[in-house]
Amino acid sequence: MKISVVSTAQQAQGIDFSGKTVIVIDVLRATSVITTALHNGALNVVTVKTVEEADNLVANQIAQPILRGGERNAVRIVGFDFGNSPLEYTPEAVEGKSLVITTTNGTQAIQNVKSASEVVLACFRNAVAVVDAIVATRFAPNDIAIVCAGTEGRFSLDDGLCAGMIIELLKQRVEVVTDDLGLLLSRDYREHRHDLLAALSECFHLKRLSALGFDGDIRYCLETNCVATVPVLRNNKIVSLQYGKE
Amino acid sequence: MKISVVSTAQQAQGIDFSGKTVIVIDVLRATSVITTALHNGALNVVTVKTVEEADNLVANQIAQPILRGGERNAVRIVGFDFGNSPLEYTPEAVEGKSLVITTTNGTQAIQNVKSASEVVLACFRNAVAVVDAIVATRFAPNDIAIVCAGTEGRFSLDDGLCAGMIIELLKQRVEVVTDDLGLLLSRDYREHRHDLLAALSECFHLKRLSALGFDGDIRYCLETNCVATVPVLRNNKIVSLQYGKE
Repeated sequence: MKISVVSTAQQAQGIDFSGKTVIVIDVLRATSVITTALHNGALNVVTVKTVEEADNLVANQIAQPILRGGERNAVRIVGFDFGNSPLEYTPEAVEGKSLVITTTNGTQAIQNVKSASEVVLACFRNAVAVVDAIVATRFAPNDIAIVCAGTEGRFSLDDGLCAGMIIELLKQRVEVVTDDLGLLLSRDYREHRHDLLAALSECFHLKRLSALGFDGDIRYCLETNCVATVPVLRNNKIVSLQYGKE
Repeated sequence: MKISVVSTAQQAQGIDFSGKTVIVIDVLRATSVITTALHNGALNVVTVKTVEEADNLVANQIAQPILRGGERNAVRIVGFDFGNSPLEYTPEAVEGKSLVITTTNGTQAIQNVKSASEVVLACFRNAVAVVDAIVATRFAPNDIAIVCAGTEGRFSLDDGLCAGMIIELLKQRVEVVTDDLGLLLSRDYREHRHDLLAALSECFHLKRLSALGFDGDIRYCLETNCVATVPVLRNNKIVSLQYGKE
C-alpha cells in the first residue's frame, strides 16, 4: 500500500486523485465535528464552501429539516444552529437530522479531493476505526493520499500528527510504502504518541483556539480511539460507512 | 526572529518574500555543490533554468571563461564540464572560474525566491556557518523563510532535516518563533542528529541517488560543519558572503 501526504487543502487543489482513496484530516475541528455528529445520530452532513450555499440549502429544503453549522475565524456564524465545536453536536441536537456545514479549512479540503474514488474523514477520535475499516473492508486497495486540511494555507501539525498515527497503525497491519512527509509524520507520532497535547502545545492553531477559550474542544479532539464511526462521501453527502452493507 | 518553512520549490512560486531573508536548501545536491564550488575557489555561480540558457551564457562569454555544470534525472548533461556531484568541483577544477549551473530542483527554488531581500544557500556542510553569519552579521533582522527545494514537486526529508538543523541551532542563540513545519523539523533533527544517514535511509531522493551509484555524494552531503562558506545572491550571481566587507 502506497501512502502519500498532502500538507494543505490548497495544495490538494491541483492534484488528480482518480483511483485513489483520500483520507481528509482536519483535527481542529471540522473532521472531529463531522465524526461526532454522525456518531451521535445525524443522518448525513453536506459540506459547502460559503454561508450563502448553506442558507440556500436550508431555504430550499422540502421534507427533511436541515441544520446549519460552521465557523468563520473559529467563531459560530450568526444565525447558524451550531458553531464548530464538536461538543455542541450532542445526540439530542443532531439525531435523525441532516446537517450542512461550512468551515474555513476542512470544508475546502473535502471540496478539493472530489476526484478521488473514495473520500474518508479522519480525526484522532476515529483514526483506529478508519484503519480498521481500511484493513477489514479493503475499500482502499489502491494508493492512499492523506490530505491534511491545514490552517489558512499553512501546514498544521495537529492534522499532520493524526496522519502519522494512521500511517503508523497501518504499518502494523499491512505493508506500507510512504513518501518523505509520511515517513516524518509517522515517526513523529511514534515518538510523541503518549502525550499528544504536549507534542502540539506550541502549534499555531492549537494556541489560537486556546486563546479563544476552546480548551475543552482541544482536549476532546486529541482523544484517540473513542468512536467506531467512519465518515465517507456518498453522492456529495457524508454518511457513516456501513461495514458489509455496501 | 520568526521562521517559516516552505516545503518545495514549486510552493515558493506564489509567495512574496519581500523584506525577508530566504534560506534555500537542496542538500542532494545543488546547494551542496554550490557551497563546495565557492569554498574551493570558484569566483561566482549563476543558476539558470534551462540547458539553453547555460549554453547561451557560455556562447556569449567575453573575458571570463564560464564552465557549465548540472544534471537532468540526476545525471550530467551531455557536453557540460561537471555533473551535479559536489566531488567533481575540486579546487583544481573551479579555482578562479565562473560557473553556470542548471539542476532540476535547487535551481528552480533559487529562481522562485528572487523577491527576497537576501537569498542565502545552505546545506548540512555549511549550516553552522549560515547560522553563525545570521547571528554575527545580523543580515537577517527580519523574518526568515527557509525554502526546501524538494524533489520533483514533493517534500524531501533531506532538505527538511537540514532546515530543522538551522532552526535548532538558531534557537540556541536567539529567540525563535517558528511555524508548525519548522517546529516538526527542528524536533526531528534534534531526535535524529546523531545519525543523519539512518534518519534519511528510507527517503525517496536518497534511495534514488544510492541506486544510481552516488553513495559517495550522499555521505559527503550529510557531513555537517565542514566549511565556513556562506553563498549569497548578489546581482543574480551567487558569491561567498564576505563578513564585514559589505
